Amino acid sequence: MFDLKAYLKVKQQAVNAALKTLWDDTEPYPTPLVKAMRYSLEAGGKRLRPILCIGATEAVGGNEADVMPAACALELIHTYSLIHDDLPAMDDDDLRRGKPTCHKAFDEATAILAGDALLTAAFEILATAGRHSENDALKWLEVAYLIARAAGYSGMVQGQMIDLSVEGREITLEELERLHRLKTGALIEASVMAGGVLGGGSSQEVVALGAYGRHIGLAFQMADDILNIEGKPETLGKPVGSDQVLQKVTGPSMIGLEEAKARASNLIEHALEELKNFGIRGEPLAALGRYVIERNK
Amino acid sequence: MFDLKAYLKVKQQAVNAALKTLWDDTEPYPTPLVKAMRYSLEAGGKRLRPILCIGATEAVGGNEADVMPAACALELIHTYSLIHDDLPAMDDDDLRRGKPTCHKAFDEATAILAGDALLTAAFEILATAGRHSENDALKWLEVAYLIARAAGYSGMVQGQMIDLSVEGREITLEELERLHRLKTGALIEASVMAGGVLGGGSSQEVVALGAYGRHIGLAFQMADDILNIEGKPETLGKPVGSDQVLQKVTGPSMIGLEEAKARASNLIEHALEELKNFGIRGEPLAALGRYVIERNK
Repeated sequence: MFDLKAYLKVKQQAVNAALKTLWDDTEPYPTPLVKAMRYSLEAGGKRLRPILCIGATEAVGGNEADVMPAACALELIHTYSLIHDDLPAMDDDDLRRGKPTCHKAFDEATAILAGDALLTAAFEILATAGRHSENDALKWLEVAYLIARAAGYSGMVQGQMIDLSVEGREITLEELERLHRLKTGALIEASVMAGGVLGGGSSQEVVALGAYGRHIGLAFQMADDILNIEGKPETLGKPVGSDQVLQKVTGPSMIGLEEAKARASNLIEHALEELKNFGIRGEPLAALGRYVIERNK
Repeated sequence: MFDLKAYLKVKQQAVNAALKTLWDDTEPYPTPLVKAMRYSLEAGGKRLRPILCIGATEAVGGNEADVMPAACALELIHTYSLIHDDLPAMDDDDLRRGKPTCHKAFDEATAILAGDALLTAAFEILATAGRHSENDALKWLEVAYLIARAAGYSGMVQGQMIDLSVEGREITLEELERLHRLKTGALIEASVMAGGVLGGGSSQEVVALGAYGRHIGLAFQMADDILNIEGKPETLGKPVGSDQVLQKVTGPSMIGLEEAKARASNLIEHALEELKNFGIRGEPLAALGRYVIERNK
């Protein structure tokens, strides 16, 4: 029986160790800018995107060390997006995972710049990995392209833009799912595809991994919204029911709790279906898929 | 005699034409996000960085079409930096080149996201160019690396961070020049180096181009600060003397107007010195160098 808990722990440690080495501590570092970048990066994320990237590369026979720069880049981009989303002009959040948000711990200008610097550093890391590996140069360019496309004006940034624009107006379930696909799904999809590309997966394998990523991305968001209603504040680390207080439109609020759970399960079934040709190597991704809807935080 | 005015006009048109094709106009585009990106991108920049990139590639025998993706990426990054610098939490500017800044024309959230999306799009463009050219894959990775390093936590973003931190306190000329080297110099240096790399320049040539870029970057900033004192508001498109009103520390305010002019001339002499081995091919860059301190806007 595959032990997901142990797998997550080992991979989180590996990712955290790699993230620690990104910026050195000799003068003039850490600058106040790098301190703010690190503050948010080390605020206790689950490292889901890096682990999906590693799991995907293992699914096609690649190995962790080879994709670590991509895993780090994905976490930097995820972290930058949280910092900017929390800004007063956006969601105006004071707390994230129980700690002051970046603009509260530092100031607004520093938070904007820390986000900008994390996003830029992600591409510096990808380019650095690529320029040192002549044989894999095209793979790294492909990965930089996949990640940039998923993160930018036709992906994550566009999702945040739509999220801000739907506040307080009625939307359809289709619009809501498009929003989630862009805002969280696109980068999750890119995470698994990046792992597949770098591990030398065939184009069919990369396509299957992308489909897996799309399904679990939507299920992840649905599960988050269900936890916001049903979760325990002590395990969740934040108050439950905040979406209802804010009258935020979510999957459960539109189609009801039971229907939302059925939809999340169905998405995971479809995700696991995509893994059927990977055999035993796909087991970590399969377990991660089940975890997405079974977790309690 | 080399006709810089005609050269600038032709190159600006070529860059503007390339920028126009970056995002298509079929549904769902242009989204409000892409509209905001375009608004700032088309607000009348001189396209200095793209033209330096093109001039540098011509100096090593390369050609314009091959570097156009890099030229566009540089302008996108420059534009994103202006949008974020103008934000209320930063310099809080309502006007840029006589037009409302992005957050005034749209809103603050849109401006933050438009900046994020422009920065991300720059790397999408570089990665796209690289993945379509197997022979030049390593060159594009090198260029993405140079640009990311120049734009990020050890370059432009760090420069803006220092700029915010020095407001209202005494600094030395060395500190001021370091600030300018990071905030404007680094990306200008990367612009010419990128052109050199993509044009197939030798490492000595790329190093010489980088040194040229560093010198004109500092001269450019000094000339800007001189124009802020001596320029004519009707050619400049903004009020003169605004730095004095804001008690902003500049080169001229620290060492006096005459000394500042001598320093700018001296920097340009050093820049031109770096071009001596490029012969006739280096003429556009030489003329651009002279223009930096002779322009009246």
